[in-house]
This record gives sequence, C-alpha cells and structure tokens, in this order.
Amino acid sequence: MQDSKGNRAAGDGADPSFHPVDFSALKFENGLIPAIVQDAESKEVLMFAFMNEEALRLTLETKIAHYYSRSRKSIWKKGETSGHFQKVEQIYFDCDADVLLLMVKQTGGACHNGYKSCFYRTIDGIIVSEKVFDEKDIY
Amino acid sequence: MQDSKGNRAAGDGADPSFHPVDFSALKFENGLIPAIVQDAESKEVLMFAFMNEEALRLTLETKIAHYYSRSRKSIWKKGETSGHFQKVEQIYFDCDADVLLLMVKQTGGACHNGYKSCFYRTIDGIIVSEKVFDEKDIY
Repeated sequence: MQDSKGNRAAGDGADPSFHPVDFSALKFENGLIPAIVQDAESKEVLMFAFMNEEALRLTLETKIAHYYSRSRKSIWKKGETSGHFQKVEQIYFDCDADVLLLMVKQTGGACHNGYKSCFYRTIDGIIVSEKVFDEKDIY
Repeated sequence: MQDSKGNRAAGDGADPSFHPVDFSALKFENGLIPAIVQDAESKEVLMFAFMNEEALRLTLETKIAHYYSRSRKSIWKKGETSGHFQKVEQIYFDCDADVLLLMVKQTGGACHNGYKSCFYRTIDGIIVSEKVFDEKDIY
C-alpha cells in the first residue's frame, strides 16, 4: 500500500497499520454503516453486513471482524459459533464515507450455508460454488 | 459458470445468460436492495449502491447498470452524465436474498472523485489509488 498523493483524511502517520480513526469522518445511518467483506487473497466478495461504532472499534482493536446484527440487535463476532473467524488485513472507506470495505483472511467459509462466499448463486438461481464445510456440523 | 449442484432458486435453463428473474425471491427493504459492484476482471470492489425493482429490471434488460438514487429519489443510469457506464456481466445474490453483487466491465472510473473505485482510502485516510480521470472535466 502506497500513499500516492500524500493526502489523508484522518490519521497521522505513514505506517499502514490501523491508526486511531476519526469516527466523526464516517457517516453512520441510524447508528450503522454497511460493510462489504472481501477475501484479501482471492478478491472474492464474501459477505455483506453492518457495523455500529462499537463493532468497528472492536474490529480495529482486535483485527477480528465484528459486526452488528440487526435481527438480534447485538454485536456479533463473526466466527464465534462456527470458528470461521475473519482476520482483518485492511479496511477502506468510500468517497461518501458511508460504506466500509474489509479485506480479510477467512477461516473456513463466510456463509452459514456452507459456502466460502454468501454470493454463491447467480440471479437466475444457479449455484456456482462448491461447499467448503457442512453447515449441519456447525450450526 | 457451472451449476455444480443442479439446484436453482429461480430460472428454468442452464444457459448462464440472464433469465426472467422471480423478483419475489429477492427481499427488498423499503423497496430497495443493496448492490455491491465489482470489476469483473480485476475483482476490485468499485462501489456500493441501491436498486429498486425498476432499476434491477432495467439492468437485466439492458445489461447496463441502473441504480436508485436515494437522495434524488429517482432511477439513475450509471454513466449517463460521465459516459462511465458499467456493462453487467453477471449478477449474484446472497444467502439471505437481500443483497446483490454485480460483476461489471467499468468504462473509465466508477467514482465521481476520479478514481476507478470509490474505495480509494484506507480507514486511516491514506489514499491508495491513482486517479483515472479528472472529475472536473466531467461533472
């Protein structure tokens, strides 16, 4: 990762590890910000979830992805049940500062249906991935 | 693209081109579904937007990405102002059927700030991409 412009919106050094982030630079909508999760190596998009400020803070502190479950109304450490954790290598934010992109190293699979990625079907309903684990063994 | 399981949630043939999609299989929240947009070749995540049913229908019909602008409350054909269209090669949907993933061929850049991808900054604010066009020439 190179700083090609010498510009930065927040942070105070060139070290590419995580800095204390100015959360006020990010736009949370009703307390949440969408997070796209991509495999750092294969570049496969694995899943989509939401974070609140606490989930983002925990993710930055532990480098293990934490999300906010809208259905359970609680913080959700990805992999806590399945062991399929996500080690976060980098986080990006978009031009409008209202979406995050996480680059992760995924243990096992991201999808609770047993696939590496949640996006295992085309819009016509054709399954285009192989299962990487048997979800019945885990959930 | 192979149908590895012989399963499908909708559609009625093995041809990988778009079929008439059963929209009722998708979950729109307040009429909208999030769409992650990925470069089909480089696998770079380019942007994030929302679609309503009409935007998805127009996208399927024309194979040019259309979105729904929540701020302008209208359909938005990506590239209509800039010429930076997105030719859609495939669309995936996730396990919960409430998020779409578009694989596109991007003309120019996806970001109105002149970058190929909207995710051109790390969470510490470091710019990690080069501009691909001068946004002042276009917008």
